[in-house]
Amino acid sequence: MKFLAYGPHGRENAAVIDGDRTFDLRPLIGEGRVVDRGFLESDGIARTRAALDAGELFELFGAGGIDGERRGAPLAPGKILCIGLNYRDHAAETNAEIPAEPIVFMKAADTVVGPDDDVLIPQESTKTDWEVELGVVIGQTLRRTDSEEEAMRAVAGYVLSHDVSEREYQLERGGTWDKGKNCETFNPLGPWLVTADEIEDVQSLGLRLSVNGERRQDGTTADQIFPVAHVVRYLSEFMTLYPGDIINTGTPAGVALGLPGNPYLRAGDVVELEIDQLGAQRQTFRDA
Amino acid sequence: MKFLAYGPHGRENAAVIDGDRTFDLRPLIGEGRVVDRGFLESDGIARTRAALDAGELFELFGAGGIDGERRGAPLAPGKILCIGLNYRDHAAETNAEIPAEPIVFMKAADTVVGPDDDVLIPQESTKTDWEVELGVVIGQTLRRTDSEEEAMRAVAGYVLSHDVSEREYQLERGGTWDKGKNCETFNPLGPWLVTADEIEDVQSLGLRLSVNGERRQDGTTADQIFPVAHVVRYLSEFMTLYPGDIINTGTPAGVALGLPGNPYLRAGDVVELEIDQLGAQRQTFRDA
Repeated sequence: MKFLAYGPHGRENAAVIDGDRTFDLRPLIGEGRVVDRGFLESDGIARTRAALDAGELFELFGAGGIDGERRGAPLAPGKILCIGLNYRDHAAETNAEIPAEPIVFMKAADTVVGPDDDVLIPQESTKTDWEVELGVVIGQTLRRTDSEEEAMRAVAGYVLSHDVSEREYQLERGGTWDKGKNCETFNPLGPWLVTADEIEDVQSLGLRLSVNGERRQDGTTADQIFPVAHVVRYLSEFMTLYPGDIINTGTPAGVALGLPGNPYLRAGDVVELEIDQLGAQRQTFRDA
Repeated sequence: MKFLAYGPHGRENAAVIDGDRTFDLRPLIGEGRVVDRGFLESDGIARTRAALDAGELFELFGAGGIDGERRGAPLAPGKILCIGLNYRDHAAETNAEIPAEPIVFMKAADTVVGPDDDVLIPQESTKTDWEVELGVVIGQTLRRTDSEEEAMRAVAGYVLSHDVSEREYQLERGGTWDKGKNCETFNPLGPWLVTADEIEDVQSLGLRLSVNGERRQDGTTADQIFPVAHVVRYLSEFMTLYPGDIINTGTPAGVALGLPGNPYLRAGDVVELEIDQLGAQRQTFRDA
């Protein structure tokens, strides 16, 4: 199944794609509500499967989503944890050492927007950069575990996530990376929360990103230094993971920070990104 | 006014103290709900003032809070931003340089517990530490401003906040400080959200913390390197602040990390902390 949201910002409704058909999720989740901690915690995914199997949900539109409607973020997340430098080629392009253990930083849930919404370049920013990332969505509360199998059982699914970054704020203004990761609109999410059962091998997904039609990133999750199972288990050492939490698992090479001439984003630039099986996003960047 | 919450974890109700009387806030905010973004965004503080003045709220109990009930966190926060090394004596004791601009890191809202709840020492942790902090509660959405006056107008009030920290995770495990700041129960909050009009000078508040009866921290917000108005304005450069967001503004000297012998917390330790006019907390630390 693929969960999604559509409609005006802040007033999205939820739907679910099963095979090539799209069903209205409102009878199950309620009006004006999208997948969130409460839905996941109350076995929302299993209840959706059961409702679909019982023919209790009505088909909404044809395949491929909700034509003509704005696509919203498919999930209202709890906390957003991010892994830094998790692809060898990206660590190399930024002149960073391969980390001995995962680097963790955070984004606020209020940075999340829909997959095609405009992204705001902060006032006076000159180093706004892109990062296509595999987002892992937690489905069950996970406390410290030593088992990667247990960690993976806590994963509800996956989502395409754009970890937009301001490099001056992140790297040149003192303190932690958080300062350059939390600008308004800096985490386009979606279009779909794809349930884990639909992804046969999460470590062989291609990730691609283009700016104004020029391919900039073209990687695969096979190149992650710390694979998803490792990352989820590792995080459980340091904090409790709750349903609806998201882990942005890092970006492959090809960001502006690592490219010759550092072609950071400017107003009017269009960024398109996609991950195999997780859909595609398209944002126009504009001045805040 | 002082907003507070009482009752079992996750099912708290809200009340408000006006002068020396405590009033039931449920008629205004609803059953099982505490102050949050929605309440603040819908002018909840002004509506409470008006309801009190009109005699529309019923007195709940006598002065001093809700006798016999657990005290909950007075606020369900959005994001929690934290300022590192914001007191000269604390920067010195940790052998850190005085920062040129505020250091920012983050805690997840899911780390918040009531002011007297047990705090969990993570499994295998040996460096769990204390930090008494002034928490600033945002009341109005604030986008980038150059004006400290405008920044301060966005402040709803203040809250006593305990920024519990695991120093190995924070400093020795690679990456950002976030890794040592987000363990479960690591942000006791309250007892009160004290509205800004009740605090004549936020830069002259005494902060104190004791462990097992021994005074460990005894500072004043007068010693902040970056005062509250500076911090709020500064943060607005990097991100949008929303009603219900909290800023933990740093801790004075006297943490275990800076003391001879590093007397980190062990199961059974009792930590008591207070800030002038903002009330007091008392936590027992125990193993997770």
